[in-house]
Amino acid sequence: MTTTSPGDLPAPEFRAAFHRVADLVADYLEHVGEYPVLPKVRPGDVRALLAPVPPKDPEPLDRVLDDYRRIVEPNVTHWNHPGFMAYFGITGSGPGILGEALAAGLNVNAMLWRTSPAATELEETVTDWLRQMLALPAVFRGHINDTASVSTFLALAVARDRAPGLEIRERGMAGRADVPALVVYASDQAHSSVDKAVIALGLGLANLRKVPVDDQFRMDAVALEAMIAEDRIHGRLPIAVVATAGTTSTTSVDPLQAVAAVCRREAVWLHVDAAYGGAAATCPEFRPLFDGMEQADSIVVNPHKWLFTPVDCSVLLVREAAALRAAFSLVPDYLRTDEEGVTNLMDYGIQLGRRFRALKLWMVIRAFGVTGIRERLRHHCALAQELAGWVRAEPGFELAAPVPFSVVCFRVTRGATGEEQDKLNERVINRVNAAGSVFLAPTRLRGRVVIRVAIGNLRTGREHVAEAWRLIREAAAGV
Amino acid sequence: MTTTSPGDLPAPEFRAAFHRVADLVADYLEHVGEYPVLPKVRPGDVRALLAPVPPKDPEPLDRVLDDYRRIVEPNVTHWNHPGFMAYFGITGSGPGILGEALAAGLNVNAMLWRTSPAATELEETVTDWLRQMLALPAVFRGHINDTASVSTFLALAVARDRAPGLEIRERGMAGRADVPALVVYASDQAHSSVDKAVIALGLGLANLRKVPVDDQFRMDAVALEAMIAEDRIHGRLPIAVVATAGTTSTTSVDPLQAVAAVCRREAVWLHVDAAYGGAAATCPEFRPLFDGMEQADSIVVNPHKWLFTPVDCSVLLVREAAALRAAFSLVPDYLRTDEEGVTNLMDYGIQLGRRFRALKLWMVIRAFGVTGIRERLRHHCALAQELAGWVRAEPGFELAAPVPFSVVCFRVTRGATGEEQDKLNERVINRVNAAGSVFLAPTRLRGRVVIRVAIGNLRTGREHVAEAWRLIREAAAGV
Repeated sequence: MTTTSPGDLPAPEFRAAFHRVADLVADYLEHVGEYPVLPKVRPGDVRALLAPVPPKDPEPLDRVLDDYRRIVEPNVTHWNHPGFMAYFGITGSGPGILGEALAAGLNVNAMLWRTSPAATELEETVTDWLRQMLALPAVFRGHINDTASVSTFLALAVARDRAPGLEIRERGMAGRADVPALVVYASDQAHSSVDKAVIALGLGLANLRKVPVDDQFRMDAVALEAMIAEDRIHGRLPIAVVATAGTTSTTSVDPLQAVAAVCRREAVWLHVDAAYGGAAATCPEFRPLFDGMEQADSIVVNPHKWLFTPVDCSVLLVREAAALRAAFSLVPDYLRTDEEGVTNLMDYGIQLGRRFRALKLWMVIRAFGVTGIRERLRHHCALAQELAGWVRAEPGFELAAPVPFSVVCFRVTRGATGEEQDKLNERVINRVNAAGSVFLAPTRLRGRVVIRVAIGNLRTGREHVAEAWRLIREAAAGV
Repeated sequence: MTTTSPGDLPAPEFRAAFHRVADLVADYLEHVGEYPVLPKVRPGDVRALLAPVPPKDPEPLDRVLDDYRRIVEPNVTHWNHPGFMAYFGITGSGPGILGEALAAGLNVNAMLWRTSPAATELEETVTDWLRQMLALPAVFRGHINDTASVSTFLALAVARDRAPGLEIRERGMAGRADVPALVVYASDQAHSSVDKAVIALGLGLANLRKVPVDDQFRMDAVALEAMIAEDRIHGRLPIAVVATAGTTSTTSVDPLQAVAAVCRREAVWLHVDAAYGGAAATCPEFRPLFDGMEQADSIVVNPHKWLFTPVDCSVLLVREAAALRAAFSLVPDYLRTDEEGVTNLMDYGIQLGRRFRALKLWMVIRAFGVTGIRERLRHHCALAQELAGWVRAEPGFELAAPVPFSVVCFRVTRGATGEEQDKLNERVINRVNAAGSVFLAPTRLRGRVVIRVAIGNLRTGREHVAEAWRLIREAAAGV
């Protein structure tokens, strides 16, 4: 047998390569603004640069890093670019990147307390920091998932499985006459992750009610209550309402007090999707918009969206952690341990493997401080207000939605018909994106295409928003 | 308004801190063997060292890194320790750690091709490399999830939703007389992630059949067929079989040819859980054990288990990618793009957010080469065989299962009753773990406690296995 371990890379080679990586990342972030936000590649271009078969023999690390620099770095979409204003602008900040690098070195799996006490207790501590920053009562308990899609999925799974007398965890929903259709409610502005959760949970998209919104894209709580009543008349069982605090298209905030009151009266689970908006709730001046959130059964906030933490990091705060454990805890023989009264994070969801995500969030909050985080969020919101002011003042443009946080939706109003106007706005976006210094993604509001500028990157300054506005006006004049 | 962006950390500060992190990680990996594998902490000890409230003001990065070094590093369980032989021994190798650090710097979300062409095409390429390494036909298409729990969950979701005529995606399973109970089959040695998937999908644990195993812990394909027939007689609909190629307790491999034949005859989805074992399938001498895998509908292999890739990285290979898209694709307005014929990875599961996990796997395969990977796997398997030989030769010990790969299960045979023997074996494990140089987790086979030594860390050499064996014998003599 081989008695000498072939082992990892030789230690000095690894150390040297890591220092090169430190410079590669630091250089990238210093110069990211010089790239076009969207790389100039067509589908298949990158694949053509990659070997179609895996290498038989080891390759020197420097060659691999050269290829990273040549093939990978220039051909990603630059989410760190100050002109990235599509989707939600996000930043994996410096402290967060360092946290990821350290976590990769430790490579722990905190499925059990025993398999990493520090990762488990840091996760409990830092999610409690976030709870405090959100001014939520101490009853909420947090844990970290990869994405809001999973956080929302888990919340709705608990809402489903706690339906009294149905024993869905044990007996399932199929082949039973005693399980009524189970209904979930969300506004027609809610994120597609709600739809996906409803599919995955076996509830059926037909049992997801899209509640209409008011003129500011906020859920109509009266309509919600009527829809619940209608479902009850037809023998269906309402199980959960997903209220959104910061919708994806316009960042509108559902009326949480009113929605919570309906949920309490109807005894349905209230899940608040604050994946993006939750960040703003850490600022006292924005917190009133979120009043009612404290009555939720579960809340998701994604630090990887607007809290400067690298993907992935989604915090799910739950009022009754025991309900989450009741839905998912399941301890096989090979995972039994003796410790009593400890948190075993594997009990809080379907994923047994868990990265040490708390580390990066801990480093971000410490390096920026609550004050520093608020200052950055306010800066983004102020830029958005300034842009909204420019739009309001510009003939031929109109704001398409209120601007509560850092996303501005507007449209060019020229065009005889709605369809013509849509095409015009799409052409404006495509022209702006072709220029390279800014990347915008469109959305639709009430069926009409709108231009959407999402500010959220740490590198975005007034000059970048001004450049976006200049390009948009120029494009609008030319199309 | 603030016109100057508060921004990220100053660039020179970030660069300097990153170099410090490079040394922190390199130092850690050079000296990890000097720590006790399990940190000497009690529940709450780490929490007591952390601030209970979030810091108001920014803290210097060096202080945060000092605290990392003081509070976090010593108090994790050291998965990188050469004496880590619990669960599955895993290693986030040097090239993989560098890949994670680079990915954190880019911080892309490859939900759409457009949101990162390089991340999308690298993921397609590197999962195809893995397919080739597994000697699987080109029809299989791979994508990367966080964990095998999610990969298996997705596979079973497709199996559920393609049930003809039921339209479960649209109509769900509840409140319907026309949906029979849907049944999933796995051996009684299958991983708990199958149970969790069945819970989450709303199928009900009662509809998960635990198929008995033979004397080598492999699924009994005859019993499987009989159970399927029995379910059909009772009007239930068999939808999927999960065969395991490398079970968690003993790494046994279900008879894939025989199971695949049953699945074909019965037209049920065959999912192969090769999360751990799949690594070994990259070696020609182990590949025959996996014959039949090419008939599967889906296969999960976790590079973060035994392919030296940091957590998380789970590859799901699917025969009909279109079935996966049919189950999960859902494109909201804000995610529509013009590119045609491209892969949008968000269509392959429930998670919209996706880290750039392909990068680390690409770097690991290139840095080690297929030859280097095989060499390392063979080394682990040879160590396991040598340990098995020592156990066989030792009076008072017996092997509890065959040793196909790198995990050895055995027990001390003293003790008048089974319960006495169990207690004795537990005491042996606890004594070994208390010594600090080795960490073992027990499992149970046929209800009896066994000692389980899992070899899989790149730093584990013959001397560490010999030390584990010395401690086990010493403990057995003393208890």
